[in-house]
Amino acid sequence: MTKRITISEVGPRDGLQSIAHILTLEQKLAWIEAEAAAGVTEIEVGSFVPAKVLPQLADTGEVVRRSREIPGLTVAVLVPNAKGAAAALEAGAHKLTIPLSVSETHSLRNVRRTHAQMIEEARQISAMIAELPQEQRPHFEGSLSTVFGCTLEGAIPDAQIARLAEQLRDAGCHEIGLSDTTGYANPAQVRHLIRLVRGVVGKEAVTGLHLHNTRGLGLANVLAGLEEDITTFDSSLGGLGGCPFAPGASGNIVTEDLVFMLEAMGIDTGIDFEGLMKARAILREALNPEEPLYGFAPEAGLPLGFAYAEARV
Amino acid sequence: MTKRITISEVGPRDGLQSIAHILTLEQKLAWIEAEAAAGVTEIEVGSFVPAKVLPQLADTGEVVRRSREIPGLTVAVLVPNAKGAAAALEAGAHKLTIPLSVSETHSLRNVRRTHAQMIEEARQISAMIAELPQEQRPHFEGSLSTVFGCTLEGAIPDAQIARLAEQLRDAGCHEIGLSDTTGYANPAQVRHLIRLVRGVVGKEAVTGLHLHNTRGLGLANVLAGLEEDITTFDSSLGGLGGCPFAPGASGNIVTEDLVFMLEAMGIDTGIDFEGLMKARAILREALNPEEPLYGFAPEAGLPLGFAYAEARV
Repeated sequence: MTKRITISEVGPRDGLQSIAHILTLEQKLAWIEAEAAAGVTEIEVGSFVPAKVLPQLADTGEVVRRSREIPGLTVAVLVPNAKGAAAALEAGAHKLTIPLSVSETHSLRNVRRTHAQMIEEARQISAMIAELPQEQRPHFEGSLSTVFGCTLEGAIPDAQIARLAEQLRDAGCHEIGLSDTTGYANPAQVRHLIRLVRGVVGKEAVTGLHLHNTRGLGLANVLAGLEEDITTFDSSLGGLGGCPFAPGASGNIVTEDLVFMLEAMGIDTGIDFEGLMKARAILREALNPEEPLYGFAPEAGLPLGFAYAEARV
Repeated sequence: MTKRITISEVGPRDGLQSIAHILTLEQKLAWIEAEAAAGVTEIEVGSFVPAKVLPQLADTGEVVRRSREIPGLTVAVLVPNAKGAAAALEAGAHKLTIPLSVSETHSLRNVRRTHAQMIEEARQISAMIAELPQEQRPHFEGSLSTVFGCTLEGAIPDAQIARLAEQLRDAGCHEIGLSDTTGYANPAQVRHLIRLVRGVVGKEAVTGLHLHNTRGLGLANVLAGLEEDITTFDSSLGGLGGCPFAPGASGNIVTEDLVFMLEAMGIDTGIDFEGLMKARAILREALNPEEPLYGFAPEAGLPLGFAYAEARV
């Protein structure tokens, strides 16, 4: 099993897009800086969508520019299309993720585009990236969302998933992510789909999972992913988040609980739990008081005698 | 991986002992009957402890006698000592579990007995069982509690755990259970301790796990247990429960979420989710309104297109 895992914090994107309250630029940066200070090395700081769709993320360009000043931080963003990617490249994001919902019904609902249209967007983004000097090219991920099932279509056939993964790879994505948008995933399915997609695009192209805890299986699904040598897990501080366009689908896995599990298992995350608790306090302060934050480890605290996989300084 | 799992509902014992409100005999039986009707085949219905210690469980003898009338149900009880076991045998319990806290500090706090005294209790219970006609002898489990760490002592040395497992086996326990009393367990540790204890008492003697969800890792720990061929998991409807003598240690894993996970993975539990929801409603009604019930699947519902491992009639 892999002994070093990257946790990609998605709260500033996936979390904030699902709540009505709009954080200020300074509040977002205070949160991002606190997580980076805790040792988080990759943060999805926003999404380049029209401000009228998600006003919560309207300042993503500025968040990217400011976050780039944090040493060692990979600044990731979501881009629903080529127009968003152009803005992301201009702002200097290190990683771009385009979501392709394997449920076409959800794709139309979420980004108002068919599968063919989304693949074409991915192609255009790859072309834009190829025009950049080598050292300025961001990492480009195609994320298969609703891949564990859709609240509108139910289960998606393996053949359709495999075909879309191949098309994303052919469109120039460096990496194919698997995203449990709806919180439907179970550990057996996690293993199955990782193997299915790797069978099409290669093992090295499938390294990340985006999981939700909607039905409580989030960390069990992480364990299944670990056993398949997944090396990056998305999570959200306080479990903030969900998909506003998939009814009933809420709750990213909780960064705090994920860090506790991995470290307790002897798997290094480089992240300090107390530092995360400071970031959680900053987030708590920035949100409306009635906004729930999730997580068990923050409530219960670390076990007596807890030790990190690698000693913290 | 095992394809049929027994879920042992411990809410009427572990759940009720941790809340102040006392359910009536009829309320308990309505709950137990509803779970049995949902397909639960083993229920820990109470504990033979002095009524002044746990008045919530004072009617355990009568609960056992009435529960025995439910066809096909294994009626399990906790017995802290030989005196409790005598009462359990008289009532006709099918399964007796004696908890031996591997943390002696916790043992003294919980049952006011040293390790040596507890092993002697187990010996006396075995002797009582041996006097019964073969067909009346209950299954006798010795459960290693706080085996994943203690809120008072921290981590317990492997050698101490192995020694106590061996002593319980030598005292006549048919089975050695592992119990995460404090919610400290992580999946790597689950695997390690199952292997450690099996190395001493044999694989066939270690078949069950009692897990809590205190730090959110409950179902991930179940997955680790499944991969080690564990066949029985304790859980509690609505996650009711915890240990009143281990500060901060609360929350059994949730029966509803456990059933969802296993069935979604294609592992048969024989339990109907809708039936569990009916039992949950009965429990909800019996508890004080402010008493929290846990569980993600009950809130989110089953995924669109969900299918049981084996079709329900």
